[in-house]
Amino acid sequence: MRESEIIELFLKHLKRHGELPLGDDAGALKIGDEWLVATNDMLVRKTDVPDIMTPEQVGFKAVTMNVSDVAAMGAKPIGFLFSLGIPEGLDENYLEGIARGVGEALDYYRVPVLSADTNEADDLVIDGIALGRTKRLLTRSGAKPGDLVCVTGDIGRAFAGYLVWKYNLEVPESTRKALYEKFLEPLARVREGIVLSQFANSAIDISDGLSKELHLLAKMSGVRIEISSERLPVREEVQEVAEILREKPFDIALSSGEEFELVFTVPSERVFDLDFEFTVIGRVERGFGVHMDGKPLQPYGWEHFSKSLKGPTLP
Amino acid sequence: MRESEIIELFLKHLKRHGELPLGDDAGALKIGDEWLVATNDMLVRKTDVPDIMTPEQVGFKAVTMNVSDVAAMGAKPIGFLFSLGIPEGLDENYLEGIARGVGEALDYYRVPVLSADTNEADDLVIDGIALGRTKRLLTRSGAKPGDLVCVTGDIGRAFAGYLVWKYNLEVPESTRKALYEKFLEPLARVREGIVLSQFANSAIDISDGLSKELHLLAKMSGVRIEISSERLPVREEVQEVAEILREKPFDIALSSGEEFELVFTVPSERVFDLDFEFTVIGRVERGFGVHMDGKPLQPYGWEHFSKSLKGPTLP
Repeated sequence: MRESEIIELFLKHLKRHGELPLGDDAGALKIGDEWLVATNDMLVRKTDVPDIMTPEQVGFKAVTMNVSDVAAMGAKPIGFLFSLGIPEGLDENYLEGIARGVGEALDYYRVPVLSADTNEADDLVIDGIALGRTKRLLTRSGAKPGDLVCVTGDIGRAFAGYLVWKYNLEVPESTRKALYEKFLEPLARVREGIVLSQFANSAIDISDGLSKELHLLAKMSGVRIEISSERLPVREEVQEVAEILREKPFDIALSSGEEFELVFTVPSERVFDLDFEFTVIGRVERGFGVHMDGKPLQPYGWEHFSKSLKGPTLP
Repeated sequence: MRESEIIELFLKHLKRHGELPLGDDAGALKIGDEWLVATNDMLVRKTDVPDIMTPEQVGFKAVTMNVSDVAAMGAKPIGFLFSLGIPEGLDENYLEGIARGVGEALDYYRVPVLSADTNEADDLVIDGIALGRTKRLLTRSGAKPGDLVCVTGDIGRAFAGYLVWKYNLEVPESTRKALYEKFLEPLARVREGIVLSQFANSAIDISDGLSKELHLLAKMSGVRIEISSERLPVREEVQEVAEILREKPFDIALSSGEEFELVFTVPSERVFDLDFEFTVIGRVERGFGVHMDGKPLQPYGWEHFSKSLKGPTLP
């Protein structure tokens, strides 16, 4: 079964939902005049952790992926919880590395740990949970025609780093460093999310690739999104990898997951209120679907892209 | 490494805590004039699920064990989240059974689901997370000399049921039914927890056996607890199993984990405000440690008890 089929199977039997329908970055409940936001994301070593990732990076990322979902709702993270599934005989130093990474991330994001649980399991599993609060909730369904479509930071380095690792591509050390930084040590956009909660109409974090996230935004908001490939913030290190693989840089950028950048839509008159770096990549229109350079954009994620890679160019 | 060693390893690196130190049934944060309570508990099929448990029971229990921790803090459950680790090739009907069980539990406890996540994993893993809110928090550290020590429901059936299953004991069908009900379908004491938040000084739920929980209460409150073995609410089905195994019924009752009954301490003048069934089993005194019938009580849980079972009496 695919993840979407499993989710559907569960939704059939879970009739009680919070004030916000399932399907956003996080769940939300109204408490007084504020929203409590809650999200969870499980990391499984076998499928989610490349062998070059240090335990510190694993621990840090388990926090980041959850904090990012809270940030995408425009909420300030207020607490973190986690459950560990630990295989018998796991090296104690590895485990301490994870603890160190989780601790560093909590310091970085200034979030307290509220509860922890450990169990024996067949594979190393870290389930992280983040809570947040906000006066105004950002959702995936608030994009309005006329909004500008924007993205924080740059996109594509996480996937380009994955490709360098996976296919053992030869790139200059400085390129590898720039790509691995995003591939192994991505950061959540917490401050940006809090600012956006005042001004933006919608937001989503990039977990599965910009292309997929834009399709979700368009679908859940009932709008059409038009973006321009030239405007995508793609760094030259991603272009280097694209060249080696004879791919288009924006194909890598659009498929790149776990970037944890925020994609958001904002009325053009509020753009000057945003005191952080971002790039305008398009505009929200009436209609449906996502177009790039005037043509329909496929909602491919990195899974799709990996499969379609041109074999002969790989070492 | 034992669980306590793993927790210690993590605490060394996690410096940021919530308003309540780690070590209670759940974590807590003050939001306005209320407490937000959050807890998580992971269920791993290999170690936590007996083979006679139906997937519906597994799903229900994943909710119960978390809701129980919220109840022990005197909080009303307001939301549930879960992450699933799913092994390749897991039977779809089994998965749907779990979904049905989770859905039934959410209906029973009247709690909405806020967020869900699924992943591929080597073994079936369900990490449940429950949120709750309360004006007054019940902790493990509030017991006061003079308080009465009380427990909801009866104790021992969960472990007696486990023993019947594990050692294939021959008991009448009615006995097996009474024991398996508690062993396979335990319920959390939500209404009781909410009432107790008004009147009790401390509370804890029975996850690891009454004996261990009393020691935790005494230690965290800085008091001595005196209980009387005659007062323990032990049903005759537990006595039947004790007889077969040539053990004392209260040894089974004190070691019985995952009962999800609430142990609480309450000033004697508030006892008449409690509108649910419970048993007074002892009293809080100045001092430290736990005594039963005037003698020190060992903090053994069911792990210890299982190991010390007299071999020859087992079939």
